[in-house]
Amino acid sequence: MINEFYKEMTGKESVIRQFFDFARARAAEKGPDSVFNFSIGNPSVPAPDSVRQALIDIVENGDPVKLHGYSPTLGQDSTKQSIADSLNRRFGMNYKANHIFPTSGAAGALAHALRCVTKEGDSVLTFAPYFPEYIPYVKGAGAELKVVPADYSSFQINFEKFEEMFDANVSAVLINSPNNPSGVVYTTETIEKLAEIMSKKQEEFGHEIFLITDEPYREIVFEGTDSPFPSKFYDNSICCYSFSKSISLPGERIGYMAVNPAAKDADLIVPMAGQISRFTGHNCPTALMQFVIERVIDETSDLSIYERNANLLYDELTRIGYEIVKPMGTFYMMPKVPGGKDGELRDANEWCWKAAKELGLITVPGDSFLCPGHFRISYCVPTEMIEKSIPLFEKAYTL
Amino acid sequence: MINEFYKEMTGKESVIRQFFDFARARAAEKGPDSVFNFSIGNPSVPAPDSVRQALIDIVENGDPVKLHGYSPTLGQDSTKQSIADSLNRRFGMNYKANHIFPTSGAAGALAHALRCVTKEGDSVLTFAPYFPEYIPYVKGAGAELKVVPADYSSFQINFEKFEEMFDANVSAVLINSPNNPSGVVYTTETIEKLAEIMSKKQEEFGHEIFLITDEPYREIVFEGTDSPFPSKFYDNSICCYSFSKSISLPGERIGYMAVNPAAKDADLIVPMAGQISRFTGHNCPTALMQFVIERVIDETSDLSIYERNANLLYDELTRIGYEIVKPMGTFYMMPKVPGGKDGELRDANEWCWKAAKELGLITVPGDSFLCPGHFRISYCVPTEMIEKSIPLFEKAYTL
Repeated sequence: MINEFYKEMTGKESVIRQFFDFARARAAEKGPDSVFNFSIGNPSVPAPDSVRQALIDIVENGDPVKLHGYSPTLGQDSTKQSIADSLNRRFGMNYKANHIFPTSGAAGALAHALRCVTKEGDSVLTFAPYFPEYIPYVKGAGAELKVVPADYSSFQINFEKFEEMFDANVSAVLINSPNNPSGVVYTTETIEKLAEIMSKKQEEFGHEIFLITDEPYREIVFEGTDSPFPSKFYDNSICCYSFSKSISLPGERIGYMAVNPAAKDADLIVPMAGQISRFTGHNCPTALMQFVIERVIDETSDLSIYERNANLLYDELTRIGYEIVKPMGTFYMMPKVPGGKDGELRDANEWCWKAAKELGLITVPGDSFLCPGHFRISYCVPTEMIEKSIPLFEKAYTL
Repeated sequence: MINEFYKEMTGKESVIRQFFDFARARAAEKGPDSVFNFSIGNPSVPAPDSVRQALIDIVENGDPVKLHGYSPTLGQDSTKQSIADSLNRRFGMNYKANHIFPTSGAAGALAHALRCVTKEGDSVLTFAPYFPEYIPYVKGAGAELKVVPADYSSFQINFEKFEEMFDANVSAVLINSPNNPSGVVYTTETIEKLAEIMSKKQEEFGHEIFLITDEPYREIVFEGTDSPFPSKFYDNSICCYSFSKSISLPGERIGYMAVNPAAKDADLIVPMAGQISRFTGHNCPTALMQFVIERVIDETSDLSIYERNANLLYDELTRIGYEIVKPMGTFYMMPKVPGGKDGELRDANEWCWKAAKELGLITVPGDSFLCPGHFRISYCVPTEMIEKSIPLFEKAYTL
């Protein structure tokens, strides 16, 4: 018989998907100019040309049997070494190749990291606003995700609630900075305080508590932003990265898990990840993409459009009157839904549907990010589309 | 704290790995000519040149944002359609694109298929000799693998034991034909009888029982072999395939799950697989390899060397006196360990280590395939190496 749990899930469409589908249907009906689609977080700039060059050179000149052969279970040594070298050079860390586990994107990295440091029945804490796919990642590891409510004033960490919710059952804390959906980057002060509390809790509860850092937007940080490397501040940490956004390769499924060399059992964690892969049917990223990545390790796409778009949107929307925590990176921001009475949060779902249906302005309500009364704008879109959308944001302000 | 279950596993090296490492160490010490390594099942022939051409054309001429963009969760439509068309053309099936789920190799396909049709506490039956990685695949789905003992005379199915072990708890039967490690292909008669028993048991127990067919060696079948397409004979079936062996791309992690359109809930199973991916952090295979595969869908590498090697080894080894069930495909065979007293099976582990240490002849004992008293030869090696190894097999015969 087919599995009832997964069967049940197929009926449920995500809210993001509903808005995306609405946008597509409206474009088909009324023409593409009638839709301003800010619902989806896909890179809008091409990979650097060096990726194309590397791919062609490798395929043209490589020995096909070796090139397309099985990658070692724990990843290609040369790829692991180049990732370690880059992190050490940039962030003053001391990773060795054996602390790096190449994965198929950040999803693969998180799924492995969570299984490495949690067990059935544990709790994992994360912070609103948060990426809702964390729920299945954590559940798949047999643990339960608990979400600390947002600090709406800054989208940094609500430390009071964090300490309240932090019980002995917590085996890992999961952060996402630069943050999807808020666009905020955790400051050095935030990371230091987080590390301090976690260290204190480790002592109090008498067991390691791991910090798992989800960092796919690490390279998309705007001018003047304080963007600390979290693993620098806390020994028991695993950094999860994806090349999807920084070099615009989301379809090529390449990222990594980097285990802090100062972590307890640091040298065991990557071999454990190799064992975990056997249970999930997850394998190394492709041999080809591993070879490509080591050649372009410190490059990025031209990411400047995201900052340009962020500034334009922020300036125009605040001029109109929207309240927004200023984004410091990524290609997202999370304004407050306008028109809440007496400072109360307004129903984001209702407002977002209204804006979509009446104006063709497609954004995503904050509820599924555990951030009610707010909406997410994904501005990985042509700048021209943003310029044209401003009058609609004006109208939407009074919807 | 790190997870004790996975930590425990890291200490245990597989037997195949031990022999492989011994081969490498001996080659380093005594020179490569002192080692005849028949332990590893990696394709030894290159991918067809059309793969190289397709890769270069796609990368040279594709729009990089689209090319490297996210694949749809359930796979690229064009890739799915080309896989369905090929299966329909070749095997008289009627798959539609929505019955195909591209996966990162057969491992990904099996991990998804097992989760689709089993639940916590179910049993999955498979047949010795079998691929030992099935244990974690099945365990990862929350079910338990039970292995039906081998029919040593033919390496077809031991139906008597199969029926004995077939209780109401069995939700899936997993077959691997052409078979690793025996090289045997299940005949039409075997598949028909298997289907008949499974249909009877479905009726008896009042629930669907799925047939999961692991077919990475489908294209490596020797002349004159009867090689039925199992899904043709049983409605509730999911075919799991990999392009690793047929076009020598094991490192590129591309394969698929094909759900029989006649299966119960056939149209739900691929969407369920999409949900399962969210829990395992497994994603679609890379966009790039999906685009490549649809261009080379019916091609294979030049696989003729495997049949040449099979015939050479079989003829020479049987001449020496080894008892072997003649392989019909793959690049494996599973001879009986020579010298068993009074027809008894002899300890394969002891004999294999003796042959390795005294002669540099590296094969793998059958015990981990649940096939004691036998050893596996992987003949995906240069024919010349086989020719040179024959005198050693002569000596090994009396070890």
